[in-house]
Amino acid sequence: MATLSAAAATVDGTGSRTLHANSPDSKKIVGVFYKANQYASLNPEFVGCAEAALGIRDWLESKGHQYIVTDDKEGPNCELEKHIHDMHVLITTPFHPVYVTAEKIKKAKNLQLLLTAGVGSDHVDLKAAADAGITVVEISGSNAVSVAEDELMRILILVRNFLPGYRQVIDGDWNVAGIAHRAYDLEGKTVGIIGAGRIGKLLLQRLKPFNCNLLYHDRLTISPELEKETGAKFEEDLDVILPKCDVVVINTPLTEKTRGMFDKERIGKLKKGVLIVNNARAAIMDTQAVVDACSSGHIAGSYDNYPIR
Amino acid sequence: MATLSAAAATVDGTGSRTLHANSPDSKKIVGVFYKANQYASLNPEFVGCAEAALGIRDWLESKGHQYIVTDDKEGPNCELEKHIHDMHVLITTPFHPVYVTAEKIKKAKNLQLLLTAGVGSDHVDLKAAADAGITVVEISGSNAVSVAEDELMRILILVRNFLPGYRQVIDGDWNVAGIAHRAYDLEGKTVGIIGAGRIGKLLLQRLKPFNCNLLYHDRLTISPELEKETGAKFEEDLDVILPKCDVVVINTPLTEKTRGMFDKERIGKLKKGVLIVNNARAAIMDTQAVVDACSSGHIAGSYDNYPIR
Repeated sequence: MATLSAAAATVDGTGSRTLHANSPDSKKIVGVFYKANQYASLNPEFVGCAEAALGIRDWLESKGHQYIVTDDKEGPNCELEKHIHDMHVLITTPFHPVYVTAEKIKKAKNLQLLLTAGVGSDHVDLKAAADAGITVVEISGSNAVSVAEDELMRILILVRNFLPGYRQVIDGDWNVAGIAHRAYDLEGKTVGIIGAGRIGKLLLQRLKPFNCNLLYHDRLTISPELEKETGAKFEEDLDVILPKCDVVVINTPLTEKTRGMFDKERIGKLKKGVLIVNNARAAIMDTQAVVDACSSGHIAGSYDNYPIR
Repeated sequence: MATLSAAAATVDGTGSRTLHANSPDSKKIVGVFYKANQYASLNPEFVGCAEAALGIRDWLESKGHQYIVTDDKEGPNCELEKHIHDMHVLITTPFHPVYVTAEKIKKAKNLQLLLTAGVGSDHVDLKAAADAGITVVEISGSNAVSVAEDELMRILILVRNFLPGYRQVIDGDWNVAGIAHRAYDLEGKTVGIIGAGRIGKLLLQRLKPFNCNLLYHDRLTISPELEKETGAKFEEDLDVILPKCDVVVINTPLTEKTRGMFDKERIGKLKKGVLIVNNARAAIMDTQAVVDACSSGHIAGSYDNYPIR
């Protein structure tokens, strides 16, 4: 357990790699990833699929560990189920997650480490894992640049009304007015960042040259240096920041406190015509309330993650 | 003519508005814009359509001028043709341009001012206009922020491989590998700006926080201050800059020198897998050469304007 905890810590960048088998302490490690099929071989850097298995097979096996990799994770006869009773480590991703329920944890008598090769452990019943003494680890920060870039892209796509134009090109149409009547510059708009952690801070830096009015809300303020660099202003009260924003970007983790945070009442506090980018978990939004507000025009555009659970 | 030249200068921001009728010097002004139909009334700020007519009708008429507005610009019996013989001013846009040929200029005996409500006068036979003593004016810089924002959006869309994911969502598919195997971060990529004028400079500033390797090519260098601020490096030789770039952004005006600038040979000098954003005129690219290079995979993705002429 100590060794594994150390290993868990290392992937977070806080130490050297120490996951090794003190024979006979060979570990059974199960990795669950999506299959890439024809895409697997197109890019040697594309390691997040079942075929490439994070690129760590040789290393793990050289240390004497057993490494089982599958994409088959559902139902009583799935491949995962065959190994759940004696695996020591389970590696999974947010893109093809194993939902590690209390029931699964009960079956996994040898499980010591639950590792998310990505960010977000909301697919794990954290209380049940803690009660069973299992270390749960995610690779915090590994996606921060990607998500910040993605969010700025989505802000621009919404503000500039890109997709209707794209669809016109694909369909062979040409109706400038249908796009231009609601296409804007980002410059001068008020953008509110809900959750200014690793991702939110990178987004604020990338938004800075766009000459927006930048606001943010979090439990804690960012550093005075970053406030000065980005010009972002802190707003303690979520219900005060929301009516001010032309664009709202959501960067909070999914916890019991943030689940359904954007419900009908809170969405009602948003400015009419607001644009929303939620690159956090879908369950932070009340999906039906978002759909209703999009239908009524209260929300003019919204990017959300699929509620895949 | 002096009065009209002064007026032309004013829209470029260099003076006060002086277009007025020294009765009986009332001018006949023809504006040609696309019709917005149902979209015209949805946004009071949407003035670029025939219905809103740039929002200058009251002002022009209060000064004693006649203001004819139409979208009907093609063929011998079109509305434009009815006014071509006695109009003094023609206002047109790049989105629905009147192609002002030598033939049209010959007919337009009274024409004094050709005004593009936008940027780019490549729809005008400039030599014929100059020979006829007609002032040709465009609103330089009016689109600079919009285009720079749009270019950064398109860079991110290409690098992050957004559109295949969007299409999956629309089609109800879910194949992460099909997108992820060629989705990248912009961070660390080499971006080359071909043409660092008003737009290119704004784009360099907006790219700065993305931590790219920024290169640019132009006839002139940007200021040392802006080079320092953005970290962009000048490259005098187009054929030297091209093989270095993961992303190429084209911001040059269309002139006889730049027409077909990206031909088969020059495209062959680009890095394999390059991404191209051309928000300048389509004719800068050899369309067939771009299509061929996209088919072969030499160009991995390209945004271009429609060759509408």
